[in-house]
Amino acid sequence: MSLATSEALAAMSNVYTWEPPDRVIAARYGVPVEDVLRFDLNTSPSAPDFLSEVLAGPFEPPLNEYPDSTYAGLAEAAADYVDADPSEILVGAGADEVLDIIAKTYLMPGARSVVPVPTYAMFRVLSGQRGADVIPVPRLGPGAGFALDVSAMLAAFEQADVVWLCSPNNPTASSEDPDDLEALLAAAAGRSDGGPAVVVDEAYIEFAPGSLVGLRSRYPRLIVVRTLSKAFALPGLRVGYAVASRPTIARLELVRPPGSVATVSATVGAAALRRPELAAANAQDLGVERARLAAGLSSIGLPAYRSVTNFLLCAMGDRAAAEGATEHLLRHGIVARTFGLEHPLADHLRFTVRDRRQDDRLVEVLGAWMEGRSG
Amino acid sequence: MSLATSEALAAMSNVYTWEPPDRVIAARYGVPVEDVLRFDLNTSPSAPDFLSEVLAGPFEPPLNEYPDSTYAGLAEAAADYVDADPSEILVGAGADEVLDIIAKTYLMPGARSVVPVPTYAMFRVLSGQRGADVIPVPRLGPGAGFALDVSAMLAAFEQADVVWLCSPNNPTASSEDPDDLEALLAAAAGRSDGGPAVVVDEAYIEFAPGSLVGLRSRYPRLIVVRTLSKAFALPGLRVGYAVASRPTIARLELVRPPGSVATVSATVGAAALRRPELAAANAQDLGVERARLAAGLSSIGLPAYRSVTNFLLCAMGDRAAAEGATEHLLRHGIVARTFGLEHPLADHLRFTVRDRRQDDRLVEVLGAWMEGRSG
Repeated sequence: MSLATSEALAAMSNVYTWEPPDRVIAARYGVPVEDVLRFDLNTSPSAPDFLSEVLAGPFEPPLNEYPDSTYAGLAEAAADYVDADPSEILVGAGADEVLDIIAKTYLMPGARSVVPVPTYAMFRVLSGQRGADVIPVPRLGPGAGFALDVSAMLAAFEQADVVWLCSPNNPTASSEDPDDLEALLAAAAGRSDGGPAVVVDEAYIEFAPGSLVGLRSRYPRLIVVRTLSKAFALPGLRVGYAVASRPTIARLELVRPPGSVATVSATVGAAALRRPELAAANAQDLGVERARLAAGLSSIGLPAYRSVTNFLLCAMGDRAAAEGATEHLLRHGIVARTFGLEHPLADHLRFTVRDRRQDDRLVEVLGAWMEGRSG
Repeated sequence: MSLATSEALAAMSNVYTWEPPDRVIAARYGVPVEDVLRFDLNTSPSAPDFLSEVLAGPFEPPLNEYPDSTYAGLAEAAADYVDADPSEILVGAGADEVLDIIAKTYLMPGARSVVPVPTYAMFRVLSGQRGADVIPVPRLGPGAGFALDVSAMLAAFEQADVVWLCSPNNPTASSEDPDDLEALLAAAAGRSDGGPAVVVDEAYIEFAPGSLVGLRSRYPRLIVVRTLSKAFALPGLRVGYAVASRPTIARLELVRPPGSVATVSATVGAAALRRPELAAANAQDLGVERARLAAGLSSIGLPAYRSVTNFLLCAMGDRAAAEGATEHLLRHGIVARTFGLEHPLADHLRFTVRDRRQDDRLVEVLGAWMEGRSG
């Protein structure tokens, strides 16, 4: 069973509405700004503690010069981290800019991009900004672990220029089946023209094994996208990167802006990638806390779907319940991730796994709403 | 007399070749990396000294959270600096991203963009990336102060979607005549459909009076672009912004990425904009040093054109001289800005005004080459 019709999805706007900052939420709901808790952005509860040391500088080049336009230090650190050559890396101002560079390279008006739904909202936004036609392919339902509908994907592939995937997938929190992914890659590569670019956003890969970076030589149009915003706990830096075969990176480099990543961000980012044990420890800790939060939600009557990421997806029963719970939480300064009326998960909420104190507060406030509802 | 034919300009690629970093130049020319002097990037000799204080943090939001997607603190600081409302500001990862957002908003395949030449190379690059047709309009020659050819610009306007201007202009180092600019704005606004977006890149405005920001209510499609990379001496941050009427900013916001500016950059950038006296002092110092460097160049037989910016443009006589001098300088680790074979300034070099020590070194090394040439 599919989650939504193509028609409903096609009605979704290309304009992405950004999450309001804490200050706006505090003012709107009359809570002190320091009481605002963000369960909507899939960020980590704290930044790594080597930060202040690196921020003390000096920076190379110094900040009165432009960043090194090759970002050699950052690219080398990323290459070492994923066991690639630096020439197989492209860096950007967050994974979002890397995705935008991919869209600039492969999409133009009338081009086709395939998006399994639900998935990361930016795929559709960026495709729309390039004037490309988006072919949405509904995923299988929760009973099937939100798996890709491989035969529908293959059918949509026919004339696609880009296929956008996210593994593990946001917002379903689920793994993609490795066999499904490889079947898609093989089918794409089998097309007589070399096939579409197959983008796999691995923003959450540190939380679950199964990266596709090792397949880049076999599938030269595979582009794996990574970020420092999730397990590395540094979204404030805006650093992301792509890993792909050299010919594909060379194509992307043609439209990469020369200096979108600040020197401070490139420097701290390289330092973080040189300390992969910190990201691994953060992912491990959040995995433990995820189980605790899932148990807490279950105890108030809200079992979450199985998650391999740092967030949990809960079915609220219906749209009114999702809206009611969201409002109740917001009045206490707690921000959940909601989905638009036309979204296949319109009756769901997504919660970031944070620290014990914050997660307990979420369960407490949400539990009170659940009680009031049944009472 | 015009500087170049449209044909030659049209042959120029859309791909911009980024300047190689110091390390690459040092290796290629066998000089120690610390001896590499950059006269090619129009940067300032040193960063402002409040930097370390702000970099010590804390940051709001902390770096384990995404930046405030509204960049309220940075937008307010920019608004106060230019005497505008924060709703009339759009921030980006350097002026280059702001220009890209403008291209995304107004250009698509088949659209027309008007570019007076020579000017900032990025206008052509970004137009090309959007598939727009570029209409180059040669400037008047050096005898006319590289002024805009207003009647040719007006003729090119007819069906233009964007007009790209740079004031003061790079790489000619010259002011635009305010009457010319206002004539262009008035003509654009007089078009029955509201006219093209008129972009005025004021990257170097702190070096010379005459900003157009005050005209934004009279000309709602005027977009003034600013940067912290020049007089504010912070190119390593990658912070730029646009100032325009609210309806125009609202259009640009539709395609602005939510988080391309790092939190550290937004924080330091706001602090810099709150200290405009530092940028003013830097501009003043560089103005004095510019006169000294110009005198030095003149003393070795290389009079520069009049400059209102932090760089000087010199005619080398012919292309072979420009290439010979460039090679000689590079063998000493000194990097001048050169122009491609097809560029109207192919026989010119551009030199950034730096500090006394660096500028003296430039004059010394270049002077030796001039002597060897005449000897």
